[in-house]
Amino acid sequence: MTITLHDLAGADAALRFSPYCWRIKFALAHKGLDVRAVAWRFRDGAKLPKPNQGRVPVITDGKRAVADSWAIAEYLEEAYPERPSLFEGTAGPSRFINSWADTVLNPGIFPLIIADLFRAVDKGDQKYFRESREQRLGTTLEAAQAGREKRVAGFRASLLPLRTVLGVQDWLAGAEPGYADYIVAGSLMWAWCASRFELLAADDAVGAWFARVRELHDGLGERAVRVAG
Amino acid sequence: MTITLHDLAGADAALRFSPYCWRIKFALAHKGLDVRAVAWRFRDGAKLPKPNQGRVPVITDGKRAVADSWAIAEYLEEAYPERPSLFEGTAGPSRFINSWADTVLNPGIFPLIIADLFRAVDKGDQKYFRESREQRLGTTLEAAQAGREKRVAGFRASLLPLRTVLGVQDWLAGAEPGYADYIVAGSLMWAWCASRFELLAADDAVGAWFARVRELHDGLGERAVRVAG
Repeated sequence: MTITLHDLAGADAALRFSPYCWRIKFALAHKGLDVRAVAWRFRDGAKLPKPNQGRVPVITDGKRAVADSWAIAEYLEEAYPERPSLFEGTAGPSRFINSWADTVLNPGIFPLIIADLFRAVDKGDQKYFRESREQRLGTTLEAAQAGREKRVAGFRASLLPLRTVLGVQDWLAGAEPGYADYIVAGSLMWAWCASRFELLAADDAVGAWFARVRELHDGLGERAVRVAG
Repeated sequence: MTITLHDLAGADAALRFSPYCWRIKFALAHKGLDVRAVAWRFRDGAKLPKPNQGRVPVITDGKRAVADSWAIAEYLEEAYPERPSLFEGTAGPSRFINSWADTVLNPGIFPLIIADLFRAVDKGDQKYFRESREQRLGTTLEAAQAGREKRVAGFRASLLPLRTVLGVQDWLAGAEPGYADYIVAGSLMWAWCASRFELLAADDAVGAWFARVRELHDGLGERAVRVAG
């Protein structure tokens, strides 16, 4: 049975850049589950399967709807135990990586690509996107993104815990890729799809790992549509 | 058979504050293994069992010596699989927590307690400690610690990923405590034993969790010797 995923779509309906949806697209591919990704826009809150939190990802598996990327990952692991594991044991420690991505990584990426993101979102979403994000930032999107060439050094420094792990093991999940990898790669896919800004230095081990993640599952990440350069 | 642990000792031989040794003391207790903790000082590099990296922890289990806290944790898990697991599955994602503790948490704590640490170390270690740490810091220990009452707010903010996880699960390792908890608690035991500075705000969920960790294994952390207030 095919799982339906409500997936944030941009001005180009094929442009799918939500970091939280990417976590789940990688997770579904890891489990080998068929997915139908439905284009969703910020203004389509009422069109989501219930229960939901007004945001994507939301999946529908038969009659069951599950919202929130972490809850979906746990659901997939429990509902499909015979398929490759996302956690290979307790999910507990991966949740720290999830929190780090949500509270350090994503807020670090956000002001580096925010004006690019505005151009990538659907025209009908732009007013909402600008107003809500400018309120959060306390400034205009353009002012928030300005000077990113200098600020990116601080962002790259904040990746040190990631870089250190990737110096001693191939994947964040250990010897094999798992949900820990998809969490962090989801954040990088956000910037990869919606912007052409070079988030990582060319010689960064994080970049080499991210390229390996994009090649997984028949190049799922590598095949993603990106904004024009 | 009793495992020997070379454990950093202070001016008071009962004062044991190394964050890396605490990881292993918790891990040994988790496994229910008997341990003989040998007092070690910075100047006693030549007295460590080989192979070693000139630092503690080093354990000796029969004829086998293992150095480096992460390597010791992996060794214990592999050598004693029938005892309670430190990882409950793959150790991979816990290694990110280990890197975060080493590259974010410990460097955050260090300048908040560094002059206190100097007073806690053994007299015969103080010259080495001051010189090596002042070189690392580029300033005196006292100057590095000055103004900590104001700087501690930034440190507390850096614990957000930790606080977020502990808002949704009881332990970093998940439903039960594990090595993920011992990594981070080890860092907090460092400050707890060697300083009376209030690293955490009274209402911080991180503090409530740390108190729970100290109560584990017959109050191993709670019973630790601390410097006088």
